[in-house]
Amino acid sequence: MFDPLLLPELREMLIEDDSPAMREFCAVFHAGVVAENLEGLPVADCWRVLSQADGRRRAEVFAYFSRARQMELVATIDKPHLSALIEVMAPDDRVSLLKNMEASQIDVLLPLMAQAERDDIRKLLSYPDHSAGSIMTTEYATLHSDVTAGVALAQLRTQAPNRKLIYYIYVIDEARHLIGFVSLRKLILAKPETPISDIMDRDVICVRVDEDQELVARKIARYDFIAMPVVDDQNRLVGIVTHDDVLDVLQQEATEDVHRMGGVEPLTDQYLESSFVTLWRKRAMWLSVLFLAEVFTFTALAHFENEIAKVVALSLFVPLCISTGGNSGSQAATLICRALALGQIRLGDWARVIWHEFVMGIALGLTLGAIAFVRAYFTSEKVLGTADPVLLAAVIAQTVAAICLWGTLVGSALPLIFKRLGIDPGIASSPFVATFVDVTGIVIYFSIAKVYLNLG
Amino acid sequence: MFDPLLLPELREMLIEDDSPAMREFCAVFHAGVVAENLEGLPVADCWRVLSQADGRRRAEVFAYFSRARQMELVATIDKPHLSALIEVMAPDDRVSLLKNMEASQIDVLLPLMAQAERDDIRKLLSYPDHSAGSIMTTEYATLHSDVTAGVALAQLRTQAPNRKLIYYIYVIDEARHLIGFVSLRKLILAKPETPISDIMDRDVICVRVDEDQELVARKIARYDFIAMPVVDDQNRLVGIVTHDDVLDVLQQEATEDVHRMGGVEPLTDQYLESSFVTLWRKRAMWLSVLFLAEVFTFTALAHFENEIAKVVALSLFVPLCISTGGNSGSQAATLICRALALGQIRLGDWARVIWHEFVMGIALGLTLGAIAFVRAYFTSEKVLGTADPVLLAAVIAQTVAAICLWGTLVGSALPLIFKRLGIDPGIASSPFVATFVDVTGIVIYFSIAKVYLNLG
Repeated sequence: MFDPLLLPELREMLIEDDSPAMREFCAVFHAGVVAENLEGLPVADCWRVLSQADGRRRAEVFAYFSRARQMELVATIDKPHLSALIEVMAPDDRVSLLKNMEASQIDVLLPLMAQAERDDIRKLLSYPDHSAGSIMTTEYATLHSDVTAGVALAQLRTQAPNRKLIYYIYVIDEARHLIGFVSLRKLILAKPETPISDIMDRDVICVRVDEDQELVARKIARYDFIAMPVVDDQNRLVGIVTHDDVLDVLQQEATEDVHRMGGVEPLTDQYLESSFVTLWRKRAMWLSVLFLAEVFTFTALAHFENEIAKVVALSLFVPLCISTGGNSGSQAATLICRALALGQIRLGDWARVIWHEFVMGIALGLTLGAIAFVRAYFTSEKVLGTADPVLLAAVIAQTVAAICLWGTLVGSALPLIFKRLGIDPGIASSPFVATFVDVTGIVIYFSIAKVYLNLG
Repeated sequence: MFDPLLLPELREMLIEDDSPAMREFCAVFHAGVVAENLEGLPVADCWRVLSQADGRRRAEVFAYFSRARQMELVATIDKPHLSALIEVMAPDDRVSLLKNMEASQIDVLLPLMAQAERDDIRKLLSYPDHSAGSIMTTEYATLHSDVTAGVALAQLRTQAPNRKLIYYIYVIDEARHLIGFVSLRKLILAKPETPISDIMDRDVICVRVDEDQELVARKIARYDFIAMPVVDDQNRLVGIVTHDDVLDVLQQEATEDVHRMGGVEPLTDQYLESSFVTLWRKRAMWLSVLFLAEVFTFTALAHFENEIAKVVALSLFVPLCISTGGNSGSQAATLICRALALGQIRLGDWARVIWHEFVMGIALGLTLGAIAFVRAYFTSEKVLGTADPVLLAAVIAQTVAAICLWGTLVGSALPLIFKRLGIDPGIASSPFVATFVDVTGIVIYFSIAKVYLNLG
């Protein structure tokens, strides 16, 4: 964790140019802790400390920096040193870094690396964003099924130093087809002479390399795995996705959902690291769309201008009535979108969901309608003018109840309809639903008012 | 994964009362897969299949059932069998189950269990909800520092069968103080005669048992751990939190944030599993609060009734103008809340955030103001009556720009203020911000209108 005492100590080391202390600092603490403390230093000092660590350690620490700090560091180092750093980074970490660099920059760096690393990078870079392939690593441990547990353990010892994860060992045949896996737990518990084929799990849960990263994450979360194998379309093992990347994916997907719900095109960078223009574009786009949609509230109201002119008091209740629809719609949309995202409901449940929300909309409408009746009944006479307080209260209460039900139905149906059409249900977010219900709510309000108040 | 072919096969086994096939089914597949397929069967059939599995396997499968299915199963089994099942469940899984049962039911079950299990359950149940203690397990592997790697591995082999996770082995002293840890990777790579004290990591990142579960989750996610040790206030090891529980916590916290943003009191159960009355209460409460707050839009409008009576066209733009504030406020609140939740911004960044949002609010306000001017200018004369189209367009454009800026500022400031006051910033969610901005937006609108349209 970030320790407020470490940073002053680090500054001291830099002033005294104490190389052994810097090396010790890089070696003793968790790479993430080293990175956090170095984030507080100027870029040049950061490199001075890192240069004391050995190559592998430097790459480990580097992977823990924020993206912004990584790009600063990359910009201030010569190509040979940078390619050496990238060469020893974990395959998934370095691909995630390279994805943020210009293609021309990558073309300069690749020829400086060993052939094997270059091929690995090219292959991983070729998988589309958000696919299992784009987050997997190629540093996994493998075995053949014809060895004994003792031999397997000896083989694992030789593989372990360059494997990201060795707690599952994947069993493959000559053509690299995935045929099973053994956990290290089982391996160390087995008698050395036991054949691997006796202890391996043959029911391997895996994902295809082109499947969505969210599906991988959900599967790992569902079955409590530390890692999950990734295979190509012929069931050949091509990589593994590990627990730490899954956490990142789930956080990222949750952030995207939340941003969509708030009417922002999802940010790819952190809030304070995003460029102003990008942020403006992602926000202005949605605000403009919603504004233009909301213009229809004007059109709807203009349609009832004569009624308003007759009973001005009617116009005073407009925001109150339509906001009820916006709020009840937001609630329903939020609940349904989140339940869809977590896989708690499926498209097939639509009838059950709509019926549930229909009954809920009535219950909520009656609740709010009752509150509205009481509040509207006690409207001061000065404001009411010639209108009858009981009649007006009845209009408001019925409008609020009807709009609440309408908002709930729209809020629950839109995410399901969007999902059915293959659109992200998150787009049917609170602001979208609220705007839709605002416009239709005005029509409901004045239709009810006309019936009661004889405004024809 | 759920395999549509397995369920018919299972039904076949039940009809033919094929016990060996049922035992095989429970043993071969991942416990999560077994549970998913059994969810599709009636409760009695579910028990028939489970009774074929051995006790430990039965407990494993049971832990993967949805909470609703677990409670159904619990309700249809006698106490001795239930206590036997609970006795072999993992400590964290069984405590999470018992938390959903009545205290009186627990009192009946506990005396049927072995003393050690009973004590473990009582201890884990005593930790408050949402604390590290409430999600930890007590099945971790330990070592003393004075043994060699070879001895350590032999000791681990005897501990492993009842340990949830053996990939980190925690090094403790005589009084159980946590002094370091060794990963199983390091242990199997070390020469058998190496002392543990030579290879163990002494910089242990851990959490206190009373710390918030979200902090544990963030630390594990940040440092890519598979598990994290939990200590008491004297640094004695009392449990570990594992990667799978962290995923659950992060999902749960994200869901809570999303629900608050949508103006729903967070649900504890899944959407379709929540009782109607609970759901109604959690939704009606917020809708009523927002409705009563929104009543102030009426109060504000009533204050300007004379102005509306003079120029009815003014009232037609009210929903358009105030919704702009709601949308821009929602955006800002969403971005700030999420960045706060992910730790991307801290309270100390408040000045930077507000300045950023102030400039952004102006940029967004100018964008929307321009769109509004054009749209308002082309309002049909029939609607406008005697009002001057340029003047009206100027009023609308300036109002939209001002309210957009105001919404952005309120939306960004409220979450920070709430956080400062120790209130969950998620409460300052979209509906809350929108309601607040609706009311103040009306005042902004008519204040600008009065200046231009000479309504005094």
